[in-house]
Order: sequence, then structure tokens, then C-alpha cells
Amino acid sequence: MSKLRVHAVSVSLDGYAAGPSQSLDNPLGVGGMELHQWVFPTRTAQQVIFGGEGGTTGVDDDFVARGFEGIGATIMGRNMFGPVRGDWAGSDWNGWWGDEPSFHHPVFVLTHHAREPLELTGTTFTFVTDGIESALEQARAAAGPLDIRLGGGASTVQQYLRAGLVDELHIAIVPILLGGGERLLDGLADVAHLYERTEMVATDAATHMVLARR
Amino acid sequence: MSKLRVHAVSVSLDGYAAGPSQSLDNPLGVGGMELHQWVFPTRTAQQVIFGGEGGTTGVDDDFVARGFEGIGATIMGRNMFGPVRGDWAGSDWNGWWGDEPSFHHPVFVLTHHAREPLELTGTTFTFVTDGIESALEQARAAAGPLDIRLGGGASTVQQYLRAGLVDELHIAIVPILLGGGERLLDGLADVAHLYERTEMVATDAATHMVLARR
Repeated sequence: MSKLRVHAVSVSLDGYAAGPSQSLDNPLGVGGMELHQWVFPTRTAQQVIFGGEGGTTGVDDDFVARGFEGIGATIMGRNMFGPVRGDWAGSDWNGWWGDEPSFHHPVFVLTHHAREPLELTGTTFTFVTDGIESALEQARAAAGPLDIRLGGGASTVQQYLRAGLVDELHIAIVPILLGGGERLLDGLADVAHLYERTEMVATDAATHMVLARR
Repeated sequence: MSKLRVHAVSVSLDGYAAGPSQSLDNPLGVGGMELHQWVFPTRTAQQVIFGGEGGTTGVDDDFVARGFEGIGATIMGRNMFGPVRGDWAGSDWNGWWGDEPSFHHPVFVLTHHAREPLELTGTTFTFVTDGIESALEQARAAAGPLDIRLGGGASTVQQYLRAGLVDELHIAIVPILLGGGERLLDGLADVAHLYERTEMVATDAATHMVLARR
């Protein structure tokens, strides 16, 4: 069966996936942008995400690249899709990724507010209002033999982790203290025993840990 | 001025320095002993701590060894000293370390309950009831030009961290999930900005991070 994989979730040394005082103007919270500094310079980020050229190669880039390999569908939380909160109210917000998003596969957005599917070039966003299991089923059907990537934010990842639905989790531990914010690995008492570390490698920018279901 | 240094504090991937359900019979909590598996096989642990022979060398051992270099005094919490709680009530508990403890320098034990100093071969335990700053002053006076090691447990380290008194902090991140327990790096909003990562190196057993005051 295809896997549900989480890639490149960055946490601070004190365990926060976003800094304190998150707001619409500062969705990653104070200091939160620093968590992602290991991603930006990589070749995969420069080319696949930003559509540019160049970029660094090596361990960090390899970990970014993995998140795009063998993926047939993506699930994300509504707050990763965009800053609009509450009812969509006819919003024409089309995501952060422009008219031709980098996904090139179906994306399922978890939300409490119904919205018609959004078809852009190569990527259709489907808004799922009946829960994380439903989103996973739909994504699995869409992905076929390929895996499903679970995007952020932290609370979305946490919900799937707590439900024991994540097969593989790549975390990048960034050696900064944020002092507060949104924790990623919290309240996992029921599922902690299900996972084992399968990889660990440190670069100057981050320590990469991969956990997989035993 | 001499430094206050923390060495070899182990935390799980989800940030716990002790597992859930801590008790007198299980002072490290469920799964907590696993946090220290990287220490036990090292040469320093085998020789200095357990008084035996052999042991592994390399990165893990180097980090254990550092905790014994240039140290003129140790501060620890009462729960690290022993399992006795509340009033000492004439307890003859002499610590976990036998009649000739491995410290060979003055040790200051934080407690709310007064007790006469305990003189063992090479090590005197002084019980400090007037707070962490007082213990630090006394330890500094005792250490002379040498540094002071801050032992555990987690709550003791946390108190000194929150007060901004720790100069150097070595954390070993162990790639297991405990799912609950006692967090080490929590509530550090006021001091997070004071620290920067100065070292990071991963072994199969642990990822070693050193933070130091900027």
C-alpha cells in the first residue's frame, strides 16, 4: 500500500515548528522563518519550489528532494494553503504557488469550510471537510501506486501522527531556541512506541531524523 | 570568571529528559533509561563513573569526558542526589556514588530541607536551602578558577536556564519518542535569544548539540 510520508518538517531545538506570536502577518511566528533557512539554498528548493536555477547539493538538498520523489498526492492543512480564515466567502485565493503550482498532482486541503475544487495547471486542489481519514482515503485513491505527502502545518502533521496514520516522518532539527510557539511532537503517548529512527545525519544547518513505523 | 556548564543531558526526539509516570521505583519514567544508553558503553562512563575498565572511545565518549574536565564544583538537584523526599529525618542516605564518590570536588545539593554537610572521601556534599543563586555563589567560591558543572535533573537545569545563569549546555538528542514525561527545554522565552549553537555532531546513538551564551 502507498505510504503517508512527511518531509522536511523543521523544528527548533526546543521542539517548535513555528515561533511564538503567530499572526497573519507573521504566519511562522517570531523567529519561525529561521527554521527553514536550511531549505532555501538547496538546488531542489531553488529549482522545484522557486523555479530558478543553481542551488546547493548535498545532504540538505537530498532531504528536500526526497519530498518530491514518488509522490502522487499531497494533503495539507488549510493554513498552509493560505491566510484566509473561516468561511471562504467567495475568496479567489489560489494558494501560494501561482497559476502552475509545483505539485503536478492532486492536493487535498483540510478545512471546516466547503469550497469547490480549484483546478490550476497540472494541480487540482480539493477541499476536504469530513476529516483527516477521508482526506487520506481520497489522496490514496488519487495517488494510485505512488505515496502521499503530508504537508504542514504542525497541527495537521500532529493530527495524523496522533491517529497513527503517518508511515514515515522526516524532521529537520534546527539548532536554534525559539523559546515558545507551536510544538510538533507533543501528546504522542499513544503512538510513540510505533516508531523507530531509521536515519540520522547532521549538517551544519540541521540534523535530519527519519522515523518510520516499526 | 568560571563557567556554569551542563553536560550530557539526554532528551528524546520529542524533548523529554525523563519518561512519563516517574516514580521512586522508576525515577527516569517509562522508557527514560533508554535516554542514557549512549553514555553507558563509553570508556569514561566505564572507568570514571563505574570504576571499571574498557569502554568505547570516539565522539560519544569525548562528550562524556568533557563533563569531567576542568570542573571544580558540582551543583545538583535533590532528586539527583537520592530518592529521599521531604524532610531528611535523620536519613543516612549518602548519595548514589558510594563512600568515595567520583566527583573529587565539592558538590552542592539544592533542597528545601536543611541538612548538615556530608563529608565522604574526596567529596563533600553541602545542602543548600536558599536558592539557585546561592548555590551558584557557593560553588563558584569552591571551584576557584575552575568551572562548575550543573548536574540534573531536568527541573534543576531548567531553573538555571530560565534564570539565564547557564553558560554552556550540551544536549544529547536521542532518536526515540517517549510520548510524554518531563521536558527539558520549555518556557525559555526570556532567554532563548541569549544562546547560539556552537557545536553539532551526530553519532548512531545521539546527536550532540552544544549551546553557549552569545
